[in-house]
Amino acid sequence: MMREMTSVHRRRPEAGNPRVQRTRAHALAVARSLLPEVGPTGLTYTLLAERADITRQTLYRHWPTRAALLFDLILEGPDVGYPQPGTDLRTVAIAWLTSLAAGLNVPAARIAVPAVAAEADRDPDSAQALVEIGTDRRAALNKLLEPSGRQITEDEYTLLYAPVLARLYFDRREVTEEFIEAVVTRWLAGLEQADLRQEA
Amino acid sequence: MMREMTSVHRRRPEAGNPRVQRTRAHALAVARSLLPEVGPTGLTYTLLAERADITRQTLYRHWPTRAALLFDLILEGPDVGYPQPGTDLRTVAIAWLTSLAAGLNVPAARIAVPAVAAEADRDPDSAQALVEIGTDRRAALNKLLEPSGRQITEDEYTLLYAPVLARLYFDRREVTEEFIEAVVTRWLAGLEQADLRQEA
Repeated sequence: MMREMTSVHRRRPEAGNPRVQRTRAHALAVARSLLPEVGPTGLTYTLLAERADITRQTLYRHWPTRAALLFDLILEGPDVGYPQPGTDLRTVAIAWLTSLAAGLNVPAARIAVPAVAAEADRDPDSAQALVEIGTDRRAALNKLLEPSGRQITEDEYTLLYAPVLARLYFDRREVTEEFIEAVVTRWLAGLEQADLRQEA
Repeated sequence: MMREMTSVHRRRPEAGNPRVQRTRAHALAVARSLLPEVGPTGLTYTLLAERADITRQTLYRHWPTRAALLFDLILEGPDVGYPQPGTDLRTVAIAWLTSLAAGLNVPAARIAVPAVAAEADRDPDSAQALVEIGTDRRAALNKLLEPSGRQITEDEYTLLYAPVLARLYFDRREVTEEFIEAVVTRWLAGLEQADLRQEA
C-alpha cells in the first residue's frame, strides 16, 4: 500500500488529467508573471511554490530541473498558429519565421528570452534551457521539412532565425511580412550558393 | 560671476581633462560591476553615485540621460581592434563582425546587451539605448565602407550582425572564423541577388 502511494506521488504528470494540467498551467502563469520582477535566477522553486500556492514537490514533478521550467516558460504560450509541413523550402521557412515572430512577440517571451540569455553565463540552468530550445526548434523545423528532402544544419538555422530575434529584441522594430520575405529570400540565396560550391 | 560658475558646472566633460576622464571611467566600471546585481532598471543614478562615491550631478554631467549611460556601458570596452576602411565589401564585413564578436564577448557585454534588451519593453531608456546603438554602429560601418561605394541599409545591417549576436547569446556557442566567413559569404550572396532583382 505504501509503495503504491509513493509511486502515485512520483508519477509524471499525465496529459490526460485535467487537474494536473490546470496546476501546471497555473504554475507556468505565475512563473511568467514573476519573471519580470525577480529575473530567471530569482525564480526559485521556493518562491514559485509560495506564490502559486503549490508544494515544491509538485513543481519538481512537473519540472525536474529549472532548465526544464525555463524551457516551457519560453516555448509554451498562446496559440499563434503552427506551420504545416511542406515540400517547398521557401514556403515552410516563411511560415516558420511568421510563427516564430508571433511567438517571440508575446509580452512574456519578449522579457523571458533576453532575460534568460542575460543570466546564462552565471546560471547553468538558463544556459541549458537556451541550448535545448535551439535544438528542439531546429528539430521541429526539420520535421516540417521532411517532405522537401532538405534538412537544416545548426549554422543554417542560426542564419534563418537570428534576424527575427535581432529585429524584435535589439532593433526594437516590427517584424513585417516584407522583412520575413527578405530574410528568407537572402537565406535561400546563401543556401543555393553553398550547394553550388559543394557540387563544384 | 554666478552665471560663469553655473556654466562651468554644466559644461560637458572635456576629453582632454585627465581627472574628468578618470572619474568617467571609474563611474562606468562601477556601473558595469553593478549591472549583473541590479539589472538595467536598478542601475539608478542614486545607487551609482553612492557606490562610485561621486555626486549625482557629476553623473548627469557625463550622461544627461540613463540611455546615454547604458549606451556607453555597452559600446565602450576593452580595445578589441577596430576594423579599417576598405574598398572590398567582403574584407570590411569580415573585419567588422570579427571586431563585433570580440566586443560582444567580453563579460560585461555578455550580460549588459541581453539585460538591456530584456528591460526595453518597460524601460524607455533601455529601448532608446538599443536603437541608438544600432544606428550608431550602422553609421560606423557605412563610414568604413565609403571607399567601396556601397552603403548598407537597416535591413541589410540586421542580416549581417544578427547571426553573431544569436550565436553568442542564444546558441551559446563560439563565434569562429569559419562561422563569420559563412555569415558574410551568404550575406553577400543575398546582396548580389537583391542587386540583380533591382536591375531586372
